[in-house]
Amino acid sequence: MKKQNNEEKKSLGLTHKKEEFEKWYPEVLTKSGFVDYSFVSGMLVFRPAAYAAWQIIVNAVDSEFKKNGIEDAYFPLFIPERFLEKEKEHFVGFEPEVAWVTHAGKSKLEERLAVRPTSETIMYPSYSKWIRSWRDLPLRYNQWNNAVRWEFKHPTPLLRTREFLWCEGHSVFASKEEADNERKFIMDLWERILRDYLALPGIVGKKTDNEKFAGAVASYSIEHIMPDGYVVQGPDFHNDGENFAKAFDIKFLDKDGKEKYAWQNTYAISTRELGVMVATHGDDKGLILPPKVAYIQVVIVPIIAKGNEEKILGYARKVAEILKERYRIKLDDREGYTPGYKYNEWELRGVPLRIEIGLKEVEKEQVMFVRRDTGARAEASLGDLVEKVDVILDDIHKNLYERAKKFMQEHMHNVETYDEFKRVLKTKKGIIHAPWCGNSECEEKIKEETGAKTSNIPFDQSDLHGKCIYCGKEAKYMVNFAKSY
Amino acid sequence: MKKQNNEEKKSLGLTHKKEEFEKWYPEVLTKSGFVDYSFVSGMLVFRPAAYAAWQIIVNAVDSEFKKNGIEDAYFPLFIPERFLEKEKEHFVGFEPEVAWVTHAGKSKLEERLAVRPTSETIMYPSYSKWIRSWRDLPLRYNQWNNAVRWEFKHPTPLLRTREFLWCEGHSVFASKEEADNERKFIMDLWERILRDYLALPGIVGKKTDNEKFAGAVASYSIEHIMPDGYVVQGPDFHNDGENFAKAFDIKFLDKDGKEKYAWQNTYAISTRELGVMVATHGDDKGLILPPKVAYIQVVIVPIIAKGNEEKILGYARKVAEILKERYRIKLDDREGYTPGYKYNEWELRGVPLRIEIGLKEVEKEQVMFVRRDTGARAEASLGDLVEKVDVILDDIHKNLYERAKKFMQEHMHNVETYDEFKRVLKTKKGIIHAPWCGNSECEEKIKEETGAKTSNIPFDQSDLHGKCIYCGKEAKYMVNFAKSY
Repeated sequence: MKKQNNEEKKSLGLTHKKEEFEKWYPEVLTKSGFVDYSFVSGMLVFRPAAYAAWQIIVNAVDSEFKKNGIEDAYFPLFIPERFLEKEKEHFVGFEPEVAWVTHAGKSKLEERLAVRPTSETIMYPSYSKWIRSWRDLPLRYNQWNNAVRWEFKHPTPLLRTREFLWCEGHSVFASKEEADNERKFIMDLWERILRDYLALPGIVGKKTDNEKFAGAVASYSIEHIMPDGYVVQGPDFHNDGENFAKAFDIKFLDKDGKEKYAWQNTYAISTRELGVMVATHGDDKGLILPPKVAYIQVVIVPIIAKGNEEKILGYARKVAEILKERYRIKLDDREGYTPGYKYNEWELRGVPLRIEIGLKEVEKEQVMFVRRDTGARAEASLGDLVEKVDVILDDIHKNLYERAKKFMQEHMHNVETYDEFKRVLKTKKGIIHAPWCGNSECEEKIKEETGAKTSNIPFDQSDLHGKCIYCGKEAKYMVNFAKSY
Repeated sequence: MKKQNNEEKKSLGLTHKKEEFEKWYPEVLTKSGFVDYSFVSGMLVFRPAAYAAWQIIVNAVDSEFKKNGIEDAYFPLFIPERFLEKEKEHFVGFEPEVAWVTHAGKSKLEERLAVRPTSETIMYPSYSKWIRSWRDLPLRYNQWNNAVRWEFKHPTPLLRTREFLWCEGHSVFASKEEADNERKFIMDLWERILRDYLALPGIVGKKTDNEKFAGAVASYSIEHIMPDGYVVQGPDFHNDGENFAKAFDIKFLDKDGKEKYAWQNTYAISTRELGVMVATHGDDKGLILPPKVAYIQVVIVPIIAKGNEEKILGYARKVAEILKERYRIKLDDREGYTPGYKYNEWELRGVPLRIEIGLKEVEKEQVMFVRRDTGARAEASLGDLVEKVDVILDDIHKNLYERAKKFMQEHMHNVETYDEFKRVLKTKKGIIHAPWCGNSECEEKIKEETGAKTSNIPFDQSDLHGKCIYCGKEAKYMVNFAKSY
């Protein structure tokens, strides 16, 4: 059996993840049928397993949003150029990667329309119209949509694609305090969603001024360390202060009879997280999907013995019936494929739990479990089936999370000096955690000289100590540096 | 009280629906906060009540799709021009209203990209790549997305907008029979969703060859009669035969060892239905939302009596607590507004059921119901509350559906001759149901001479009789004519 598996594995032709991550990653994504390249450069096809995982995230986030008073809306895909230009920093940040609509049918448009890279500049003119008095606040709208950023760097599926799916939360408050208070809810929500659905840890913190969102006063993020040691920015939150309110004239008459600019926040989670999930959990056999977001959670593979086909298939169907009320399952009763071939296929697709059913299982009224994450096998009697599946799926989720967290922790390196910084950057993968004076110039010099950018300033600053690795002044923050996508 | 209501109503300034529907319709949509005009001509903002109704439709349709084996996927927003051109009829049909992306950042693109008006031509190159053998079929993917059609006719919110939200089902089968079999499931599903969620009836039938989808072999639709007598096409289904398979080379190796072209269908339901819903059910006071899709199903308005504020508010909160587990509710405890003002506002927004709570209700431990559809009032004791709300909401739904059906039936006119046809077209609103020879030339002549188009050929042909109203030959079909949006 082992031999057969290996042979068939080779025929799937997967690269080794540890040795050549950048080759393994797109390979595992496409060969597993999770996503595919499309016929537009840099844009993807989300196949059912990927879209289903996204739908589960959408529903989970949306229900938390609604409980907290955030409402869903939908604004136009296109943004007239004159609006995109209104907030200067924002425009400078996004203009280089805007896809422009210039014609409709045979006619040239009078004004170019940007395909939304983000929706501040099409939403806020409406906000300005709607908001008149303190009674209209807070206004907290979110939208689930597609956005386009025509990046010219090398695209990486899901992590750097020219179209992505995401949510855009855009809140307006009467006071800075209320606006600031929203941050904790959103950042905690992102952390919970990543942990409880995608089994992903991350480093929660504040972006430096250099790395904040174009147009924001302050940005916050969760950062992920990828298997190759590069860092990817996950979901985020931005305090926009009064920047956009001033650019778009979002004013309100306050209780005190005075007209004031409103305070705004924005926040987002995107399909990029699916890429982080695949990269983090997958192995040389293919995807490993966390059970909560797995399109198929349990696959049942009957091992047909000659003369006992109906006995085995009948029992497999019974197992499927028991499980299908509670789980997303697949009974793989295809003819003309060996069990080994099927095992490989479902391992490639990342199904967290496999149930094998042969003659022995039928006769003993039991099943054989095989975990995707560890390959561990375990028996269970039919009576314990549902309970055992619950326990195993839960344990798979925990194991994936713990494994990812361990990887993250092992790839965080503390340094005290710039020499140490440069040496670690050359020899080790991951994040370099260093004392920093807080000055943008030091940050820029380090980037220029080494290529490493700051990812974020962790919220947890309990280890603050020492001198800035670049200028030697007293450290104000411990900050994380890394190479990034 | 009556007087106050009337005065406040006037200040809302709604046009009379019956007298000036074309003015009433956009007014009620925007004043109620359901949608708003955006700052891009012909594109809308879906505010929370509209988006929530759409989300409910999406979830209902999606769950039926999944039970039937249809899977969700997501394909790129952009379509390279060379693909859009591949199926000639399809291209001719859509090219005049395509929004073209020509530039990205500062660079001119080598090839123009169409913003999807519909996704056949970006999906089918992938289908061609994926489908090799009969084992890969059926392939039934749907996607929920936004589409852009840059119509140059006068836009009408939700009914004719340049961007809309919809689902696109795109199925591939090994045989014509299997493809044909899908039609009944989809058309029945559309009928059920319209009836059970939006309280909308419609006329189910087949489009004539002249009016079918660009690229299809046969199109089927549900048609709605609007309050002004014009007809709007609702959800649809298209048999594409082998047309796209030949254009995009979607071939498979069948069980018999022969290579064959695949058979395809497409189908869609869009946010246009929200427009039909608003137009059909609303009245001079505003929206009337069917309870199943109402953002707020029950609004509770406390009628504060001086000195008893806390008693009344406390009781209102208790009522809200009881209802909120089961319904989407709102307790309108805003200060500074009269109950009459609040009644008008929630009537304008279309909340199906209002609960008034004054001192009498507190003392008798009861509530006062006021139905949005009929204005009828009824009392209920606190103990019966949930049960009574169930019954009333259900009855509101039925009443809206029956009212709409009656309107539809009253606006279907049978004619036997062309003279009668022309007279009815001038004097009556709605559909003209007439015998037709089935010849496209007669259909075109009638359109040229009168402006009336065929909407569809009803599935129910039990009344087939007589001679074609145009040429006098034996009728092959009873067909519906109307003026249309």
